[in-house]
Amino acid sequence: MSLFRPDVERLAGYVPGEQPQESGWVKLNTNENPYSPSPSVLEAVHAAASGRLNVYPDPLASAYRKAVADVAGVDPACVLPANGSDENLTILLRSFVDAGELVAYPYPSYILYETLAEIQGARFERIHLRSDWSWDWDAAIAVAQRAKIVFVPNPNSPSGNRWTSDELLRLMPANGVLVIDEAYGDFCDEPASCELLDSDVGDRIVYTRTLSKSYSLAGIRSGFAIARPELIDGMRKVKDSYNCNSLTLAAGLAAIEDQDWMKSNTQHIRQTRERLTQELRAIGFDVVPSQANFVWATCDSSDSKIRRTHAEIFEELKQRRILIRYMKFDAPDSTIDGLRITIGTDEEVDMFLNAIREIVVA
Amino acid sequence: MSLFRPDVERLAGYVPGEQPQESGWVKLNTNENPYSPSPSVLEAVHAAASGRLNVYPDPLASAYRKAVADVAGVDPACVLPANGSDENLTILLRSFVDAGELVAYPYPSYILYETLAEIQGARFERIHLRSDWSWDWDAAIAVAQRAKIVFVPNPNSPSGNRWTSDELLRLMPANGVLVIDEAYGDFCDEPASCELLDSDVGDRIVYTRTLSKSYSLAGIRSGFAIARPELIDGMRKVKDSYNCNSLTLAAGLAAIEDQDWMKSNTQHIRQTRERLTQELRAIGFDVVPSQANFVWATCDSSDSKIRRTHAEIFEELKQRRILIRYMKFDAPDSTIDGLRITIGTDEEVDMFLNAIREIVVA
Repeated sequence: MSLFRPDVERLAGYVPGEQPQESGWVKLNTNENPYSPSPSVLEAVHAAASGRLNVYPDPLASAYRKAVADVAGVDPACVLPANGSDENLTILLRSFVDAGELVAYPYPSYILYETLAEIQGARFERIHLRSDWSWDWDAAIAVAQRAKIVFVPNPNSPSGNRWTSDELLRLMPANGVLVIDEAYGDFCDEPASCELLDSDVGDRIVYTRTLSKSYSLAGIRSGFAIARPELIDGMRKVKDSYNCNSLTLAAGLAAIEDQDWMKSNTQHIRQTRERLTQELRAIGFDVVPSQANFVWATCDSSDSKIRRTHAEIFEELKQRRILIRYMKFDAPDSTIDGLRITIGTDEEVDMFLNAIREIVVA
Repeated sequence: MSLFRPDVERLAGYVPGEQPQESGWVKLNTNENPYSPSPSVLEAVHAAASGRLNVYPDPLASAYRKAVADVAGVDPACVLPANGSDENLTILLRSFVDAGELVAYPYPSYILYETLAEIQGARFERIHLRSDWSWDWDAAIAVAQRAKIVFVPNPNSPSGNRWTSDELLRLMPANGVLVIDEAYGDFCDEPASCELLDSDVGDRIVYTRTLSKSYSLAGIRSGFAIARPELIDGMRKVKDSYNCNSLTLAAGLAAIEDQDWMKSNTQHIRQTRERLTQELRAIGFDVVPSQANFVWATCDSSDSKIRRTHAEIFEELKQRRILIRYMKFDAPDSTIDGLRITIGTDEEVDMFLNAIREIVVA
């Protein structure tokens, strides 16, 4: 008999994208930002490391929370910092979902929602998106109504499309929490805001954000949730007291205070995204219009110009030390697959485009 | 109706020791190490911060795990790094304990075990220690037998006493896991080892350790579990993929590789501990012989020399900006209280001793 909980015993475990530890790869597979974080981050980390690492961090993360609150236009009592946005997703499950309760999320999207639901012993239902990534509203609302948590990434991954606030409101559970995961929110042409917190159901909405993408800080693990104080206060009881370390808090604070740096990089990435989209289309790919720092590209392997499956393209790129993400999803009656390409530097994107032209057009 | 899980709604939440963010305090309340971490930590953090913070950390933490394994004399497959030892305790609960299953731990000890059990929806039972901090064996074994996890801090807090491996083995559950929490293990006169992993029941034992205390790194949040690979593999499924950030991994690796620094500091702390123990006894306190970086001191307020309760002494020290920990526990038929004093620098301990002489002898 296994010692583990049956839910854990059954679990395959979430498999993150490949993280080669040696250099020499063009890495367009895990939606990292190709640009460096603000130079003030290095200074802040150095100061924190020279300071008092022998003492515990501020368990309230007061300075960090105030900086987030100022940028988001909310009160610091509305902010819960976490060890990466993934930790906030875990905290949400542990706060709101008892064994057997329902977690719902659009599919395809972030498969970690499902893994976390399984660990929690919750049931989960996938809300299958249409092939154009739009909602099948009747079915979607029927599932969302019954859920304790509905997770919606906005923009979505791997598609990169973004839903309107009105659409999100239709996914509100009858007696549960709507979590709007804005990991990629800073890459939208119209910046993300927390406007739904002021709505009639704002007391049951949580936004989550991360410094991993737009602030170029995947390495420090820093994310935060924004919600009304009553929700944040309860979620705080579930987290470890010292979940955010002193170095990360210092780095994150410095990054958040340098909004110009973040905005300049995200602006650049949006321009590169537009160029990559156009060039992939010129080669013969279908590309979903993206509001994130990646694009979702598909092709027809029977196309006389392409003559390659998605999996073959992925493998041939990998042989050239270019990593993108090949993703495959079970749809109700079929399988969806395609390629998710992170927006790198212009140079990286050119290397990718040259390689893909060699592969599919040569 | 609350949105939160009933277990969370009921929860008071764990209250960590005070962490004043301004300087000017003699801080002997949260068992931090008064000495700086190894100088190589600062270098390592600086190098990591100058490197690629825009990419995710190594999800396997390979270099860190190898360093831990070398020091502990185990295989790297036996090591699970976490965002502080507290995260490993959370991972243990989520791996092994289903709602309604039993968590047991000695009382008084680390109250967080109870908080984590409550969050998990588990039952918990306190194994009440005798007033001399020894086990009431018949009662202890009866509870431990039925538990899914037995947590035993060794050395214990707040008492500072240490149990033998033979004693620990008697606390093994019949069908569960024994977690030996060695947060303070490096302060023992005989260094902690993982010897019970080689015992007959070694496949159901987990050791947890932290860099917060002996390595002077409470600020970076780094701890690790050591167990046989079958247990570590299952626990890994429960943790977030990127639970350890790049800066902490670099700092932790540098600290672990500088064993001389750690041993020199812990040796110094042991000497100061001996002096503090003797001087407190000379004033009239009872002090438990400690194997940790703190001592547990009690006194009789009716003693003509002392004339103060523990709570009064705590408050009078706080007025002098000296923070220690006043702790109160419910025993079966009474209340236990006392003072836990972290071993600071010699200068800090002198300030504390001078103050306490003013308070109780003046």
